[in-house]
Amino acid sequence: MIENEKQRTELSEFGEFGLIDHLTKNIKLKHKSSITGVGDDAAVIGPGDKQMLVTTDLLIEGIHFDMTYMPLKHLGYKAAVVNFSDIIAMNGLPTQMTIGISASNRYSVEALEEIYSGIYLACEKYNVDVVGGDTTSSVSNLFIAITVIGEIDKSEIVYRNTAKENDLICVSGDLGGAYMGLLLLEREKETYKADPNMQPELSGFDYILGRQLKPEARMDIINLLRDNKIAPSSMIDISDGLASEIKHICKNSNLGCSIYEDKIPINIVTVSMAEEFKIDPTIAALSGGEDYELLFTISQADYDKIKDLEEITIIGHMTNKASGENLISRSGTSIQLKAQGWDAMNKYV
Amino acid sequence: MIENEKQRTELSEFGEFGLIDHLTKNIKLKHKSSITGVGDDAAVIGPGDKQMLVTTDLLIEGIHFDMTYMPLKHLGYKAAVVNFSDIIAMNGLPTQMTIGISASNRYSVEALEEIYSGIYLACEKYNVDVVGGDTTSSVSNLFIAITVIGEIDKSEIVYRNTAKENDLICVSGDLGGAYMGLLLLEREKETYKADPNMQPELSGFDYILGRQLKPEARMDIINLLRDNKIAPSSMIDISDGLASEIKHICKNSNLGCSIYEDKIPINIVTVSMAEEFKIDPTIAALSGGEDYELLFTISQADYDKIKDLEEITIIGHMTNKASGENLISRSGTSIQLKAQGWDAMNKYV
Repeated sequence: MIENEKQRTELSEFGEFGLIDHLTKNIKLKHKSSITGVGDDAAVIGPGDKQMLVTTDLLIEGIHFDMTYMPLKHLGYKAAVVNFSDIIAMNGLPTQMTIGISASNRYSVEALEEIYSGIYLACEKYNVDVVGGDTTSSVSNLFIAITVIGEIDKSEIVYRNTAKENDLICVSGDLGGAYMGLLLLEREKETYKADPNMQPELSGFDYILGRQLKPEARMDIINLLRDNKIAPSSMIDISDGLASEIKHICKNSNLGCSIYEDKIPINIVTVSMAEEFKIDPTIAALSGGEDYELLFTISQADYDKIKDLEEITIIGHMTNKASGENLISRSGTSIQLKAQGWDAMNKYV
Repeated sequence: MIENEKQRTELSEFGEFGLIDHLTKNIKLKHKSSITGVGDDAAVIGPGDKQMLVTTDLLIEGIHFDMTYMPLKHLGYKAAVVNFSDIIAMNGLPTQMTIGISASNRYSVEALEEIYSGIYLACEKYNVDVVGGDTTSSVSNLFIAITVIGEIDKSEIVYRNTAKENDLICVSGDLGGAYMGLLLLEREKETYKADPNMQPELSGFDYILGRQLKPEARMDIINLLRDNKIAPSSMIDISDGLASEIKHICKNSNLGCSIYEDKIPINIVTVSMAEEFKIDPTIAALSGGEDYELLFTISQADYDKIKDLEEITIIGHMTNKASGENLISRSGTSIQLKAQGWDAMNKYV
């Protein structure tokens, strides 16, 4: 089939989002129960007041993880958590999961048990039921496809396309750590390959290693907002870097934004590692992926409720569309936010 | 990680079902909305009267399909249909889908478009909405993970574990065709590899090729049963061969069965191809997979309603557990049904 193609467009000519947009642009939803389809963190299903959220994420060996430094149990945990994060980013509660795993005969039963034990640990912690799946062989490599279903009251769903002009832009936790953890692991892998007797130098970097190897989904933030009666006007999880995610909110809400560089929360370990790699920590936060923090907007009227909450930082505000998507640098100059996500920095396609 | 394992059990020591059983045996469902989990064609979710069904299936290049003879559009169509079949086997209506596709740079955008066009064609025909998914790169090969959600009234769900002693065992359509189609395609591939100038000899075999390359899910049978007021007492789709599927019903319903060899419906093209390959057509029906017909049981009281329905064949009846799972041969001898499914005949791990 492939040899006979008249025209050949390389996958790399599209980014991940461009490709998904391209392949799904003609979809028209037919069922009354299909409330929202492609284009948010999760799909919304169900005509009643109690609705369901559905999300699917793939984790592919050699693309999303490297078996040389990714412990199998962590891999399972992470594969589960990244899906929980998508449900949580809609303000929902993850409840059920199906697991698809395809592994080559390089993997033993014990190896699959390790992956499953990580998935089950995450399900225990986030109170999610594994209800089905498929386990099969592959010719090479390991491939994990997880689908998570969540519950939510119709009135509480938070979409990406509902931010309002002048809303405050907030993030949970800190950013860029997972990416610096990845760079550290990649460096130690190269060192090890050059000289297998070298011991990896990982001490003191637990924080960023944990961010990369064992991320958490911020259910606690959802609960914190609810406890403080703060209803986000829009929300998304930060899987591909702050820049990529805020641009999703801007595009879908038909608005612009101003993000203040000096407000972006970055952990001190992330900063020092970035300096070691001669990378601007702001770039790591903007374009490094896999932090799985929440990015959300709130009405200015909620400022007093949020300003003293630990773990939440106000980093800017939404503007009209004509103002564009801007980063206000430490020196006060306004720079257009670049579309680069984690994919672009790394090895997508 | 893998090198350091203390104990190594090969995946091949378990069959597919053994492996899934092993990896999921300790699951305990926590949510009230998780009605049924692992162990049927699809999971059942939702505490209300209107429930949801969820199923996930993987299709892996080199394991489930071979790009040398599987047209990409057919591949997409089949990937969708095998999931619809799982929902239908619960007596449900497939309504939504998420698509996960991971492809190496050997695949072009046009190739992915072909796969998606096949998926969309199936969704159009079966009236299913694509609501989300993930598209990403892989180091090698093509992986397709599809999750389908369905709707059903709680009172209408048909499980595997609810067959009753003396119930009649029925199948839709005919069996063994998809497997003979696979063998034919494999043979022509070998011929082509030996001499690329040879033209494949596929004429006259459209039926079995269609069974392998473009299977359908039997929504029509579900509607036929409903129209005739026949409520199956148990049901499963035949993805791994009749023997494997009836053994699932027996095990889950805690019963035995008697299947009559001379009643098993086999198409004439399947029979003649089997003869050419010197394979007993009954073996093709029992152990060849991918027919996606429905296997179900009905009360003897429904015999008059079903006996004249085209497309449905009564092939035996359920017995008590002590009688075992038996095939009554043409000569009248009783043979214990072997557990071999499609996997065992083919190349699972």
